[in-house]
Amino acid sequence: MSAVERALAHVRTARGTYLDELIEFLAIPSISTLPENRGDMTRTAQWLADRLRGIGLETVELMSTGGHPVVYGEWLGAPGRPTVLVYGHYDVQPVDPIDEWTSDPFVPTVRGDYLYARGASDMKTQIFAQVKAMEAFAPGGGFPVNIKYLIEGEEEIGSPNLPRFIETHRDQLACDVVLNCDGGILGKDQPSITYALRGLAYFELEIATHEKDLHSGVFGGSIRNPIHVLAELIASLHDADGRVALPGFYDKVRELDEEERRALARLPHDDEAWRAMAGAKALYGETGYTTVERVGARPTLDINGIWGGFTGEGAKTVLPARAFAKFSTRLVADQDPAEIQGQLEAHIKAHVPEGVSWKLHGHSWGPGAIMDRESPCMRAAMTALGEVFGVAPLFKREGGSVPVVGIMQELLGVDSIMLGFGLSDDGIHGPDERFYLPNLYRGVETYVRFLGGL
Amino acid sequence: MSAVERALAHVRTARGTYLDELIEFLAIPSISTLPENRGDMTRTAQWLADRLRGIGLETVELMSTGGHPVVYGEWLGAPGRPTVLVYGHYDVQPVDPIDEWTSDPFVPTVRGDYLYARGASDMKTQIFAQVKAMEAFAPGGGFPVNIKYLIEGEEEIGSPNLPRFIETHRDQLACDVVLNCDGGILGKDQPSITYALRGLAYFELEIATHEKDLHSGVFGGSIRNPIHVLAELIASLHDADGRVALPGFYDKVRELDEEERRALARLPHDDEAWRAMAGAKALYGETGYTTVERVGARPTLDINGIWGGFTGEGAKTVLPARAFAKFSTRLVADQDPAEIQGQLEAHIKAHVPEGVSWKLHGHSWGPGAIMDRESPCMRAAMTALGEVFGVAPLFKREGGSVPVVGIMQELLGVDSIMLGFGLSDDGIHGPDERFYLPNLYRGVETYVRFLGGL
Repeated sequence: MSAVERALAHVRTARGTYLDELIEFLAIPSISTLPENRGDMTRTAQWLADRLRGIGLETVELMSTGGHPVVYGEWLGAPGRPTVLVYGHYDVQPVDPIDEWTSDPFVPTVRGDYLYARGASDMKTQIFAQVKAMEAFAPGGGFPVNIKYLIEGEEEIGSPNLPRFIETHRDQLACDVVLNCDGGILGKDQPSITYALRGLAYFELEIATHEKDLHSGVFGGSIRNPIHVLAELIASLHDADGRVALPGFYDKVRELDEEERRALARLPHDDEAWRAMAGAKALYGETGYTTVERVGARPTLDINGIWGGFTGEGAKTVLPARAFAKFSTRLVADQDPAEIQGQLEAHIKAHVPEGVSWKLHGHSWGPGAIMDRESPCMRAAMTALGEVFGVAPLFKREGGSVPVVGIMQELLGVDSIMLGFGLSDDGIHGPDERFYLPNLYRGVETYVRFLGGL
Repeated sequence: MSAVERALAHVRTARGTYLDELIEFLAIPSISTLPENRGDMTRTAQWLADRLRGIGLETVELMSTGGHPVVYGEWLGAPGRPTVLVYGHYDVQPVDPIDEWTSDPFVPTVRGDYLYARGASDMKTQIFAQVKAMEAFAPGGGFPVNIKYLIEGEEEIGSPNLPRFIETHRDQLACDVVLNCDGGILGKDQPSITYALRGLAYFELEIATHEKDLHSGVFGGSIRNPIHVLAELIASLHDADGRVALPGFYDKVRELDEEERRALARLPHDDEAWRAMAGAKALYGETGYTTVERVGARPTLDINGIWGGFTGEGAKTVLPARAFAKFSTRLVADQDPAEIQGQLEAHIKAHVPEGVSWKLHGHSWGPGAIMDRESPCMRAAMTALGEVFGVAPLFKREGGSVPVVGIMQELLGVDSIMLGFGLSDDGIHGPDERFYLPNLYRGVETYVRFLGGL
């Protein structure tokens, strides 16, 4: 009987206890953004640390970050074997609008095949499943790989302290691969692995044409209007083909090869369903690319917010002094956020008329990431998923950003395997968040097979 | 001794009493927008009605409008002579920020040559001066012209009930000319008459590309962004020469002739001072026109407000569903607001891409106005100003709108003579509003000479 077989047998014996323990974990309201839940944050971190100690890790500690602590755990008893850094987070989003929940978000409740609770899908169940997989190995005399845990408490508030934490503890966190449990699969019974994520560079721009708001009757027609200047600038950011018009913007973008385009085309995607899900009358994007390519493999630039002048009820004839926009570029691997900022500044400089002042403020950024689909770790993950689900897993790209993936690539020099089990209709961040329970057990088995197969 | 000479003699005798009586008028806080001042509004209207009765008008009444009453007065004892409709308002603006007032806004206070009080310049002093001019004629046996008074109480809240009131009482208000006392002159000692005002058409536009705000990572690049659509639309509203790019927009604009351009060029105006007053680094406007022409004689289009998406602190990667703009055109005489709305709709229809929905809402409008500089009434006003100030008065155009002037032209078919004595640095609508007292007495004399000279 191999170590994996022994672990799977343990899972079959133990799985009857999982739900009660998971419910205990989910019941603690670890909302990282609310000061009143500070005590719950510590309780949750300690609950997790106790579990890690319980499965036999050598070192387990709460490490301070300046904000909520990181739960760190380590077992390095398999010299010569790979070292896996497990990434997850124990914090959750607030629960508003609370009226729209069917049951209390912190009284985890089973209805049908689903467990309803805040954090059920994002992502307590998955970090729990990974710990249960490790636990399944422990009785047999140790783990199949060296393991480190970095479970943070600030993911839902943008991980403000994480990059510095990783940088500070670079040696301690050294590993061969990151197992990132914060993710999902394409369908209940359709496993998949995300191998590319878009990065993000977020900016705020202020345009000022004069000092104070003026009367549009008195001054209108004799000085510039900052909203006009901003609108013209925004209009200049895309060309007629829907491409971003910053010079050099696409220089480092990796073009898709034919094989990858064919693979992406095989993903279960339907433009009509996508359009309906967006609630749009029509799709629109960069000429020459499919929707899957546009959101997964192509960089974009979107204005996220705009404001200026009078925005209240009724009419006020103001000639505003200032106009503002927030906007962000979704970047693909190899695009450098700092270079993009430089391109933006050059573009703004070239387009804003003389006598108009502007300020560009970089809010936050993270590089895009692309993982090698042929690496041994990736293959181990694909094999594990296929064995557990009985269906060939698919590779997919994601349009969103998981900054920690880029950060790990940048600071630790390692790829992440995105192995999580959430579903797109789990309602994360919203009311009635849920998790499809059969995939709790499949998840534990997948983590067992993945770790055993490394 | 002519009637005018007798009246002027009366003014010289009576002027010592003016200040105390004016202070009584200014001390009543007739703030039309505040419900708690409703009683003060009625008191002010009655105070005025008593004055009109006191000078011998035949009919004086408070007429209901649906909002604050109109003070109406009438004397038609000069058959064959012209009928003058005096327009003014007895309401004032709120006093915020109250901390910035040197003395209580409703305890009128003389400091140097100025009388400080809310309503001192806008416009209780001027309607008071006009009544005093009429009073000066009364002892001599009647007025030199037939006279009607329409003194409203809702000018500072946009005269919401005035157009309907005028329409309903069209016959009662019939007149040969309107004497609009709600205005100003170029300088303390430089009289002037505004003979053209810009009109206004105010709109709100909503652009919607999909149903709900979406995640810019998930959907960014695959559907339209309403802020991009709105920005492109705004950019399309002007051409490179700063002209409004709506087809037909300039068709009805009266071009300035050489004589009028020369007269406007003689007005005391300095581009550098104007730029400094605006707090702008540079002036900008329609190619081929001077600043005075741009703000006085040319129509403009300004975005007054814009909003959409996330406008709070920090970064939110939202792909908004909707974007909004408020904007207004300043129109010159002969441009028809309804036609402009039609041009706008056609332009939007032509520029908004398929699959994007939009709604245009017309908020409010008033036509522009231009008065005949050669009419007998206008000449009487110019003569009166020149005699009283000892300086030739200048003709000027104004960029702002005085909707009642357009309304009078439209509903009663008569021009308005803009004869008021406010100064641009009187601080109307702000703290420490004031009136230059020597022009109270000049004002009474000017009204005497104007009425006598008709």
